[in-house]
Amino acid sequence: SIPLTAFLPDDSFVGKFQKLISETVIPYQYDVLCDKIDSAAESHVVKNFVNSGKVLKGEPEGAEFRGMVFQDSDAAKWLEAAAYSPALKTDPELRKKAEDLIELIENAQDSDGYLNTFYTIKDKEKRWTNLLEGHELYCSGHMIEAGCAFYEATGNRRLLDICEKNALHIYRVFIENGHEGYPGHPEIELALLKLYDLTKNEKYLTLAKHFIDVRGVDSDFFIKEAKERHWSVWNGDGRNKHYQQSHLPVRQQSDAVGHSVRAVYLYTAMADLAQKTQDKELFDSCKRLWESIVQKRMYVTGGIGSTVHGEAFTEDYDLPSDTAYAETCASIGLVFFASKMLQNELKGEYADIMELSFYNTVLAGMEHDGKRFFYVNPLEVVPGITGQAVTHRHVLTQRPGWYTCACCPPNVARLINSLGKYAYGENSTTAFCHLFAGGDVKFENGIHLSCKTAYPYGSDISYKATGKGKLAVRIPRWSKNTAFVFNNKRITPQTDNGYAVFEINGEAELEINLDCKPRILYPNPKIPTLSKTACLMKGPLVYCFEGNDNKGDVLSLSLDTAEKIEEKESDILGGTVILEAKGFRQTASAELYSEIPPAFSKETLTAIPYYLWGNRGVNQMRVWLPVK
Amino acid sequence: SIPLTAFLPDDSFVGKFQKLISETVIPYQYDVLCDKIDSAAESHVVKNFVNSGKVLKGEPEGAEFRGMVFQDSDAAKWLEAAAYSPALKTDPELRKKAEDLIELIENAQDSDGYLNTFYTIKDKEKRWTNLLEGHELYCSGHMIEAGCAFYEATGNRRLLDICEKNALHIYRVFIENGHEGYPGHPEIELALLKLYDLTKNEKYLTLAKHFIDVRGVDSDFFIKEAKERHWSVWNGDGRNKHYQQSHLPVRQQSDAVGHSVRAVYLYTAMADLAQKTQDKELFDSCKRLWESIVQKRMYVTGGIGSTVHGEAFTEDYDLPSDTAYAETCASIGLVFFASKMLQNELKGEYADIMELSFYNTVLAGMEHDGKRFFYVNPLEVVPGITGQAVTHRHVLTQRPGWYTCACCPPNVARLINSLGKYAYGENSTTAFCHLFAGGDVKFENGIHLSCKTAYPYGSDISYKATGKGKLAVRIPRWSKNTAFVFNNKRITPQTDNGYAVFEINGEAELEINLDCKPRILYPNPKIPTLSKTACLMKGPLVYCFEGNDNKGDVLSLSLDTAEKIEEKESDILGGTVILEAKGFRQTASAELYSEIPPAFSKETLTAIPYYLWGNRGVNQMRVWLPVK
Repeated sequence: SIPLTAFLPDDSFVGKFQKLISETVIPYQYDVLCDKIDSAAESHVVKNFVNSGKVLKGEPEGAEFRGMVFQDSDAAKWLEAAAYSPALKTDPELRKKAEDLIELIENAQDSDGYLNTFYTIKDKEKRWTNLLEGHELYCSGHMIEAGCAFYEATGNRRLLDICEKNALHIYRVFIENGHEGYPGHPEIELALLKLYDLTKNEKYLTLAKHFIDVRGVDSDFFIKEAKERHWSVWNGDGRNKHYQQSHLPVRQQSDAVGHSVRAVYLYTAMADLAQKTQDKELFDSCKRLWESIVQKRMYVTGGIGSTVHGEAFTEDYDLPSDTAYAETCASIGLVFFASKMLQNELKGEYADIMELSFYNTVLAGMEHDGKRFFYVNPLEVVPGITGQAVTHRHVLTQRPGWYTCACCPPNVARLINSLGKYAYGENSTTAFCHLFAGGDVKFENGIHLSCKTAYPYGSDISYKATGKGKLAVRIPRWSKNTAFVFNNKRITPQTDNGYAVFEINGEAELEINLDCKPRILYPNPKIPTLSKTACLMKGPLVYCFEGNDNKGDVLSLSLDTAEKIEEKESDILGGTVILEAKGFRQTASAELYSEIPPAFSKETLTAIPYYLWGNRGVNQMRVWLPVK
Repeated sequence: SIPLTAFLPDDSFVGKFQKLISETVIPYQYDVLCDKIDSAAESHVVKNFVNSGKVLKGEPEGAEFRGMVFQDSDAAKWLEAAAYSPALKTDPELRKKAEDLIELIENAQDSDGYLNTFYTIKDKEKRWTNLLEGHELYCSGHMIEAGCAFYEATGNRRLLDICEKNALHIYRVFIENGHEGYPGHPEIELALLKLYDLTKNEKYLTLAKHFIDVRGVDSDFFIKEAKERHWSVWNGDGRNKHYQQSHLPVRQQSDAVGHSVRAVYLYTAMADLAQKTQDKELFDSCKRLWESIVQKRMYVTGGIGSTVHGEAFTEDYDLPSDTAYAETCASIGLVFFASKMLQNELKGEYADIMELSFYNTVLAGMEHDGKRFFYVNPLEVVPGITGQAVTHRHVLTQRPGWYTCACCPPNVARLINSLGKYAYGENSTTAFCHLFAGGDVKFENGIHLSCKTAYPYGSDISYKATGKGKLAVRIPRWSKNTAFVFNNKRITPQTDNGYAVFEINGEAELEINLDCKPRILYPNPKIPTLSKTACLMKGPLVYCFEGNDNKGDVLSLSLDTAEKIEEKESDILGGTVILEAKGFRQTASAELYSEIPPAFSKETLTAIPYYLWGNRGVNQMRVWLPVK
């Protein structure tokens, strides 16, 4: 990972998204947190911090907590996203909003370091009694991430100090005082490892390792906890051990199971710890879990979680398009996991999946205007069934402005705004380009890099590098014919596990031309719902067919995979590249089942990038089409 | 409808099934009801009647109720099936079992006519306080059906008297005393209309009409009831009005909604009442509901109910094969509904659907050995996902021996054993042949008919008729070229709404040759889950592809619809006709998504009748295959 401030985006694809986040999403989400947006679900998160401060000052009258038990984390994720925003340095208003919020957080923290408005306002006696559902460690984790980000961005320690005080309190509770248990929702593990990176305080490493090591060793822990406590949030009894990945010690886990966000947050921390402690057994477990996801349990869009029931993974090859969950946060977590796997071993596959998740499910999580968000990211939408049939109620045809459980919107904001940390990496000798993100990068190893590209719509990437060492650029596996011009000479570079490696000594120029022509993808025949279908991709972008571009009906379309797919520039939704494929439209039949063989007429089918779906009103959408 | 005793089956298809029911299913189910089958779920139903009798005699010690609140209905359905069995007249042991059970029921009936073991044993005060969930009227309805059947079969009034006493008690409660409400689970309405047919007591017609007329008029009734009572069975609050079809007065209903068994039991009674009272508004409502089912909400197998959630209909064209509910009882109810629609208007479509449901979903509900039963009838099974993924847990790959909620097994038994009533009908001048069932029929209008056929495996049906009047034989819509030989002359008969009509005067012989060659069916493109697929039928039989006959894997198969489908006799499962189709097998790919176009090898695909699936161990099954 590179320092937060090392990447300065230009105004190409990633930079434009970061600008949208900084200029629209962060101010909008701040207003939501302050309950200033009438059309959005109530947040109450700022008021909760205010009220927590009042309670601690001994003024509990009217100090009400509202929202989910993990409501605090929305403020943390907003602060983290804001910290990643260049505007924090140039926009005094934003800086003031952030500092005012930090002050509220400071006042909401108990003298012993405890920080959680739900418990402080409602009932101090409940602290640490419901690790299964209580989300105290989860909220602390998100605040720690925000504290690290704010310090990295500004050099200001105020939030970091709050978080360290909180982390040391947790250390006392769980390590020194031996409080049993581990988080029902993993998150703090990866955050503590970040805090360790920043502070080098071994206590944070110890605490993270503790939570990872004890998980699933007593797989009945949450059942016992549920029996002992006299309150609950959602009547959780801990019996569905897979849900919170407590069914087995982590080093014995092999299948990606349970709540998909919990899973990938846990695996991220496991992979980070494995790298930090050179724990081969733990890394082997991470590799098995990675393979379980990408070889058997992942949508082609990089979405994970096949069912709304427990927002969870299900079984191998069970990947329904229409009832998919594919939570935005889960794909964000998959980006984290991939990034930590890359720190263990440099392998293009990790970056390929990181890119797939980012350009498809993560970006689809946000409306083009930056003000509405998807939680669930289906691969098929049929108005009349989607959002209506009891099995499809969780799948929406349009992005809402906010959610009662608003984990995804600020999560998208923080990921996009910190993309530099995932796109680039380094060690003492090498600068890594995992993703293609236009802008300038100053690596700590002395290499400076300037990247210019219209990617993912353009296929050329130009680098100018100065310094001494190596430049390792991931060449996506899908780029079958990649051309390299290094210092004005066409070369065939040395490649290592999907990375092309170049020696830099002084100034260097590198031009890469990727093979971004449209591709047809076919699913494994073991996926029952995708028998004899195909989908289109171009570069990292999965495409989809919307009714808008296809006479209002995509259900009767099929794809002729023998014909060439054409690319066309389009000015819809701020400019994109659409794909035109040859295919067929089945003539509508009036009967439910008919002996009359359907008639097919030739038609040119139009596909748009998946991340742009649902931006033009309610209509049908399909990623996978039957093939001729 | 014809009298129960009018049809005497021979040993062809229907007769063989009736023999299986009489010789195996009825004795087996009796042992289940008496808790003598270790491998089956506990029934306790006989013990409940014993205990109810004890309570009424003032000996409540140890008199325990066990099972579902509607447990009594299992005894009623068994008695009804037994009444329909010819063995009741020839097998003294069976007759004794039935009469002993009737005696227990008699003892379990309260002096005022009330009859329900749950309430009598557990708490008399709860009577009639929970019509939403309480199933008192439902259980009475099933007992009334059994009472009518037993009287029809034997001339013995004992059970009928119990039922009349019970029905008159209900009449006093709801009509004379004005107790508010209507059944949460419709059933008694159709039963009271049967009782009226048999006894001509207008009170039963009045009571049935009352329950039908008041339904949904106060659509908040169940909500209010739930608020007033201090107990519940399943925490039902009545808010999901569609579930129990109380969202609208029945004459305003148009879409088939809610719990599919409740729906079709209600519609059956509505259609019967419409005919009895010549209520055109009510019949129009029945027609709309019929069309909603068969034009938009029915599986090709005649299954209904697309989701396990509420065992219910969902939305138009939402007919997933893999997560289907398609309860056996719902298709039995659809047979009832079709039969009553036929009494309103003679139209081949009703009998076509009746036949489709019977030969596919209803028969699939029972294992070949008559001892195991399906509740849920999917159109696709993939071991590893089916029965395992949280969304697919209700779909089993194998038939269990019994169910805690055991509505389906005795329902199959009673339908098969009374099939003559659905296959044949009459009015004063005409004998109707709605279904093809080999055997002799003595119509009350004086016509005697003898039918010989190997249908559904053979395509010839021979009738010998004596008497004076008309013979109207339904010619299935799928039979494109039907040949008729009447009194040794090839003729083209007069047809009326799908029925071929023949004048009988004295002795007559009719030979019908149906066009039973295999057919390919295509789904409406509005069904999202069936895009570009097809399935096979032969006569009334839907076929399916099982792993057993197709190298263990049907997911990679596709069908070549241009090639001829061959029929072959097979001795599997007691003899059947299998279909062989030309198609392709996709070569397995190791990757989850691949750019390599799949390779296809030609293969002969084997299909068996759907009703025989799941009889040869756990394996894949598919009704619909992708087409080339």
